[in-house]
Parts: sequence; C-alpha cells; structure tokens
Amino acid sequence: MKLASLKDSPDGSLLVVSSDLSRAMRIGVTMQLAMDRWDWFEPKLRAAAASLESGEDRLVIDFAAALANGEIGAPLPRAYEWLDGSAYLSHVERVRRARNDKVPESYKTDPLMYQGGAGRMSGPRDPLRAVTEDWGIDLEGEVAAIVGDVKMGAAPAEAARAVRLVTILNDVSFRRLIPAELAKGFGFVNGKGANALAPVAVTPDELGDAWRDGRLHLPLVCHVNGKELGHPNAGTDASFGLFELIAHAAKTRELAAGTLVGTGTISNHDRNVGYACLMEARLVEQVEQGEAKTPFLKFGDTVKIEMRDAKGASVFGAIEQRVEKYQ
Amino acid sequence: MKLASLKDSPDGSLLVVSSDLSRAMRIGVTMQLAMDRWDWFEPKLRAAAASLESGEDRLVIDFAAALANGEIGAPLPRAYEWLDGSAYLSHVERVRRARNDKVPESYKTDPLMYQGGAGRMSGPRDPLRAVTEDWGIDLEGEVAAIVGDVKMGAAPAEAARAVRLVTILNDVSFRRLIPAELAKGFGFVNGKGANALAPVAVTPDELGDAWRDGRLHLPLVCHVNGKELGHPNAGTDASFGLFELIAHAAKTRELAAGTLVGTGTISNHDRNVGYACLMEARLVEQVEQGEAKTPFLKFGDTVKIEMRDAKGASVFGAIEQRVEKYQ
Repeated sequence: MKLASLKDSPDGSLLVVSSDLSRAMRIGVTMQLAMDRWDWFEPKLRAAAASLESGEDRLVIDFAAALANGEIGAPLPRAYEWLDGSAYLSHVERVRRARNDKVPESYKTDPLMYQGGAGRMSGPRDPLRAVTEDWGIDLEGEVAAIVGDVKMGAAPAEAARAVRLVTILNDVSFRRLIPAELAKGFGFVNGKGANALAPVAVTPDELGDAWRDGRLHLPLVCHVNGKELGHPNAGTDASFGLFELIAHAAKTRELAAGTLVGTGTISNHDRNVGYACLMEARLVEQVEQGEAKTPFLKFGDTVKIEMRDAKGASVFGAIEQRVEKYQ
Repeated sequence: MKLASLKDSPDGSLLVVSSDLSRAMRIGVTMQLAMDRWDWFEPKLRAAAASLESGEDRLVIDFAAALANGEIGAPLPRAYEWLDGSAYLSHVERVRRARNDKVPESYKTDPLMYQGGAGRMSGPRDPLRAVTEDWGIDLEGEVAAIVGDVKMGAAPAEAARAVRLVTILNDVSFRRLIPAELAKGFGFVNGKGANALAPVAVTPDELGDAWRDGRLHLPLVCHVNGKELGHPNAGTDASFGLFELIAHAAKTRELAAGTLVGTGTISNHDRNVGYACLMEARLVEQVEQGEAKTPFLKFGDTVKIEMRDAKGASVFGAIEQRVEKYQ
C-alpha cells in the first residue's frame, strides 16, 4: 500500500495511491491520525487500495497530474520527531576526513544520531530554499521509516514491528554551517534545512524482498542538474539498520506515532557507484585531484532523488527540487 | 489569558483557565489548531476568558480539581519542534567545569541550542520516568515561549512579535549519558527525557512588567523532596533572551506555529539563590567540599517547579513530578 498527502492544510489530506503512482483516492483524514490509530485505519486503507487497484472506483484523483501541479505535499507534512542516524561508515569517514576529524571510536556499537526539525517538511516538488548560497547547500539522499508508538527501551525486534511506512527523503544540509555546530556538541540547528520527502510512503510489504533486516536493498539514484551524482545501494555497507536506529532513538524515551527515523546519507565503500551528497564527491576529488571541484548547489540548480525496484518502476516517486533563494 | 489542555487525546482539548487557576472553560479545539490559526482564535479565546473571569459562565470545569486528579496534560501536549537554548552563562560554566570542558569561545555571540523531542510531553503531574537511576536523573527548570509561524532569517524584533504564549518546564536530563553524546557532536538523543510542562501557558500580556526583553523577570522556585533547591531569577544573567534564541532557531529555516523555544536551565551567578538543576549543586560542592554530595534523583523522589508573581500568586501553576521506574 502506498500513501501520500494532498497539500491542502498544515497536516494535509491522506491519499491512498495506486502502486503505479498514477491514481489516488482521498480518505478524509490526516496521515497523522492514521498513524495515531493505525490498527483501526489500516484495514480500511487496504480496502481502499484494493478498490483503487481494481480500477472500479470512479472517485479517483489523477495522482501523476496532482504531483506535476505541485499539489502533493510530504506524505507526513509535519512530524513530531525526526531522528536521523548516520549508518553508512563510508559517508562518515569521507565527511569527517573533509573536516580533519576522526570517526568516533564508539561508532560501530553506538549509532550517530541527531534530532532535526520536521515541523514543516517540503513536498516532493517544493523548492529547496536558502537565504544564501554561502551556506554550502547540499542534498543528502536517505531512507526513512515512519513508526507507530515505540516503548522506551524497545529492542530492535520490537522496533521492527513498529515500522508502519518507509520512504526516501532529501535531508538538506548547509555544509559550511556544520563544523561550528559540531564543535559546540549540541547537534544541528542551523546546519540543516527543511527535509523534502518523496511523493509517497509505502508499507513494508510493498517492498517485497528488497526490505530485510531494516535495510532497503535498492539503489538510490541521485541527479544534480540532470547529471547522475550516484546510485549507492541503501542495503549495502549500512553499519546499522533502521530497526537498530529506532531502538537507539527509543533508548531513554517513548517515540510517538508518526516519528520519522532516518538512515543518514546513503553511501557505499565502492566509489564507482557515486554519491548521494555533494560533500562526498568533493572529498574524494580533494584527495585524488588536490582540490574539490564539484560545487555545492547554487540557486537555479535542480536535484532529483528516486529509487526504482528490480523491474525499473519508481517505488516512491521522485523528489525533484529546484534550489531557490528564500524570499 | 491562560491556556491549558485536558488530557483526553494525543493533542488534548484546549481550555481557557481563570487567572487564579481555579476554573476553566473547554473550547472544543486543540491547542495546536489555535496556534495554527491564532489570529482567528485569539479574540474568541479572549472573550471566553473574560466571560470566565466575570464568574457568570456556569459551564465551567473545576481546574484545580482536574489538575489534582491528573487530568491536565501539557498545555501543548505534543509540539513539532522543541529547540532549547542555554542562555545562562553560570549554568554553562558550572556544568562544563564538571566535565572538564570549557565554555565554547563563540558562546557570547552564538547561542548554544539543541533540538529535542517533544512528541510526547509530560503533563504537570505526570511521573518522571526512567528505566534506571544509573542514568543520573536530573531536573532542569526553564522558561519557554510557544511561537506562531516564524520566517527564515527573522530578526529578534520579528521573533518577539511571534511569541504567542510563555510557560515553564522541566527539561529532564540524564547526566551520565550526556558526556558521550556531546563528544559525538550530534546533540542529545538519549541524554534527555520527556519534558514536563506547567499546567498553563500564558499570553505575554498576562505577565505585565515581568516580561521584557524576551526575559521573564521572576524567580523560578525549584524543590526536590520538599526542600528548596533554588530560586534563580530567570530575568538575571541571561546572555540571550528568548527573542534572540527564536531568531537563532529560525536562522536557516521557517519555524512552524506551535514551536517551543526554551531558555535552558535558569541559573544565576549568585550562588545564594541556589539552582534549578542538581548538576550545578553537585559541581559547587565538588569545588568547595571536594566531592559532590547532592545525589541525582532516585525513584520515589519528588520535584516541584513553580514561578510566583510579585504578589505571590502562582503564574503557571506548579510542575509536580514523582520519579518512577519505567515499566
């Protein structure tokens, strides 16, 4: 089952979307309410999805057109918690090296994770906005789980049962603001921009064999200005899966339904697959060519992030953002 | 005007509360909706408050009884963003010294701020829960503003106009988990517990002259097990007021209505006023007596945090929590 939200209010209106992302049905509640009362809503949503796939239902929205018209928001337009891990060692190594910093000793047993802002997430076609290019604007292609209620101290197996939906996102970073914030130790307040989510979030069953061990075993294809930046596989080289990351987030607190937990930038040790953020490309250039040549994003640049299944079909739809000056 | 929420659902039901905290009127919407559409709701809420003060309205709730019965949640039971500053230099100095760390150079011009969890905030009489006492459970008495929409890059003067409500809170800390998280640089994910908010949040006009320059010039009285821990004045020794802290939070992103921005633990240079967290008491003992004698909180301990106006009336009602083992 695939779910989305119409961009008609701060919380949006929940849509059940056909598997091929062409059509949708409006449900009349918000995604957050569905997360709050999932057991009650899930069978009704699945019935709506079955009706939609049968093609018999005539009260359908042209989802592809609504998406193209900018009418689709983030599947969960605002979330109470956004906790983002950093599960790919190659990303951590490359980025830390770029700022003359080491990978923390504890990295392999204790996940890196920060809490970010999710009070106003961007839709898949919303602009990526910044006041100035000087911030060092970068994309970060990631996978995220949206969970139901999670108890304090939940083990990874309990965390696994709490995963309601999976999606991809652009965790926008302002690279030149991050070193100063890291030095303060308090995490990122200014160093991250508004996340953009894919058009749909999907139930784990929709992912088939590609979803196992809390990892999504598919390549995340990232383009900048129409040129491929990389297609690292989200199932490869992850030190921690989403189940471990959710358990880490819940170690000392309950997680409320609708909490979004992310993997961190997808990154593989194999450089031939490229990257899901510009920072890594720059670091490798710096080491191999003496200087970083790939620029950070400029106003007018475009970013595209998408994941396709084994048959080549877009799983979540594409995130396509244009970088704009904030007015 | 004073506002609260009945604990009847994840978002609660908004109450207008009489100035003396004795009675309340149920409004039939959530606090979040009132935040989302403040211009529309504010005059209606003020009319309800005037009716309540006149004593003529008979459809009132006994607020004091509801509070005593544990029926009152946090005024905003779940917030999309919780951004907490650290505005009091004496707190930063004492706590950093306790972990053999220095106050960051940038402190006086660039606020320390972390993003925390607010997806499930505790009500004023809810237990303070932890899995184990070994975490080093501590209270932190703070002042917070709840804002309306704030634009990216808003100046402090714009931030000032966005302040809708002011309240106090207990920003629960797990002291023994914090050093390892600070070393990682990504902020606090495990080192902080669920915040508890006061029974009511109030509009700035309710605070009179005590609210100026984004600072609340009243002592915050903190008790542990019935014994006063301290009464530092929130208007004294703050390097940054809430207007500056809100502007800092909004430097690179919009803040959604209902965002909660905090001052950090209230702390004064004058030791005679005591402390709003146990960590500071322990540090001073360590320096003066060779060892920390004040223990962190144990299961069964009680915490009380309250602010009284010049006439001795409780402004927000008291936060009164019992420390309990999480089951």
